[in-house]
Amino acid sequence: MGTKETQARILATALKLFNAHGTGKVSPGRIATACGVSKGNLNYHYRRKSDLILDLFLQITEEIDSRWKDDPVHPSMEHLSFLFFRELRLMWRYRFFYRELVPLLRDDPVLRRRFGDLRRRRTRDGQKFLDGLLARGYIRRLGHPDEFALLTTNTWLLTNHWLNFVESTGQMDEQALHRGYLVMLNMIRPYATELGLRDFERLADPRIEVEPT
Amino acid sequence: MGTKETQARILATALKLFNAHGTGKVSPGRIATACGVSKGNLNYHYRRKSDLILDLFLQITEEIDSRWKDDPVHPSMEHLSFLFFRELRLMWRYRFFYRELVPLLRDDPVLRRRFGDLRRRRTRDGQKFLDGLLARGYIRRLGHPDEFALLTTNTWLLTNHWLNFVESTGQMDEQALHRGYLVMLNMIRPYATELGLRDFERLADPRIEVEPT
Repeated sequence: MGTKETQARILATALKLFNAHGTGKVSPGRIATACGVSKGNLNYHYRRKSDLILDLFLQITEEIDSRWKDDPVHPSMEHLSFLFFRELRLMWRYRFFYRELVPLLRDDPVLRRRFGDLRRRRTRDGQKFLDGLLARGYIRRLGHPDEFALLTTNTWLLTNHWLNFVESTGQMDEQALHRGYLVMLNMIRPYATELGLRDFERLADPRIEVEPT
Repeated sequence: MGTKETQARILATALKLFNAHGTGKVSPGRIATACGVSKGNLNYHYRRKSDLILDLFLQITEEIDSRWKDDPVHPSMEHLSFLFFRELRLMWRYRFFYRELVPLLRDDPVLRRRFGDLRRRRTRDGQKFLDGLLARGYIRRLGHPDEFALLTTNTWLLTNHWLNFVESTGQMDEQALHRGYLVMLNMIRPYATELGLRDFERLADPRIEVEPT
C-alpha cells in the first residue's frame, strides 16, 4: 500500500471513529489498530491528533471549493434547495467536526483561521446568491437596510447548527433534514415575489426528490 | 462548612472549570483540588462526572422554571427582548453545556430525557408567546399554515446555538449578543403589524439598555 493510500485510509478510519465516539475518546493507537497500520506508520503521517482533524477539515473545504465554486452563477429556488441538502449531507459525513466546533476551534489556531476563511467565503457566496435571487425577481426587499445581511447570518446559523439541533432533539434522518429545509424556506418566504412563491410551494413538497450529493 | 455549602461550592467550581476547559479535560481530582475538598468528600457528593453535569443542568432548568414560569402572560415586544437576553446570559453562564450539547446528551440518557422535557416546555411557551403577540396585534399571519411552528423552531435554534455560532466566528461580547437579537428581530419583522413595527424599531436600537438577568 503506497503512502497516499495509507494516508487516505488513516483519514477515513479517523473520520469514522471520530463520528462514532467523539475526538476526545479516540486515541491515535485506536486509529492505528482500526486501520491496520503500525503506530510508527501512523506517527509518520500524523504526529498529533490535531493534524488529523485539520486534514479532515481541509477535505471539507476542498470539496466545497472544488465542486461548489460555480454556485453563485445559478441563482434559482431549485438551486438553493440543491445547495442546502448538499451542504447538510456533507456536514453529516463530517459530523464530529460540527458537533465539537467550539472546542476544536479553541484548541487549534490554524484550524480557527481556516474555518474563518471558509466562513467568510461562504457568507459572501450566500449574499451573492440572495442578490442573484433578487436580480431574477424571485425575492424582493421588504425595506429594512440590514435585512439581507441578517438573513444570510440566519441561513449560515441554520446550516451550520441544524444537525446539532436535530441530534439534541431527536434522531437524524431524511425527515429531520427536510424539516431544516422547511425552516429555511420559511425564513425566506416572506421575501418571495409571486414568481418566487410558485417555486417555493413546489419545492417545499416533501414528495419532491432532491438530488443527493 | 455544611454539606449543602460543600455541594454548592463543588458545583460552582466544576462549572468554572468546565466552562474554561471543557468537560473532557477536567478530572474529578482537579475539581476537588480547585475547591479545597478531599477526593473522598467529592466522591461522597458526586460519584461520577456525569452526576455533576446532570446537577448543573438541573440548576439551569430550576432557574428557568422558577423565574420564567409567568412569561407567556406578558406578550409584548419589550418582554420578548428581555427574555432573549436573559436566556442567552443564562446560557453563557453554563456555556460548557451548550458547547458540548450533542456528546453530553448522547452519553447520558437521563440528561437526554430531561433536556427533551425542557425543550418541549420551552417550545410550547414560545408558541404561546407568539400566539400572545398575535392576539395583541403586534404580529399577523402571512398565510402559510406552518409558519408559526417553523418560526418557533427557528427561534429555538437561534437561542440554543447562537453562542456556539458566535464563538465559532469570533469573540463573545455584548455586541455579539446584540447581533443575535437583531437576527431574531429580523426573523419576526416580516410578520409585524404597524403597531409591532413601531416597537421593533425602538427595541432594535443598540443604545437601548436591556436589563440584564
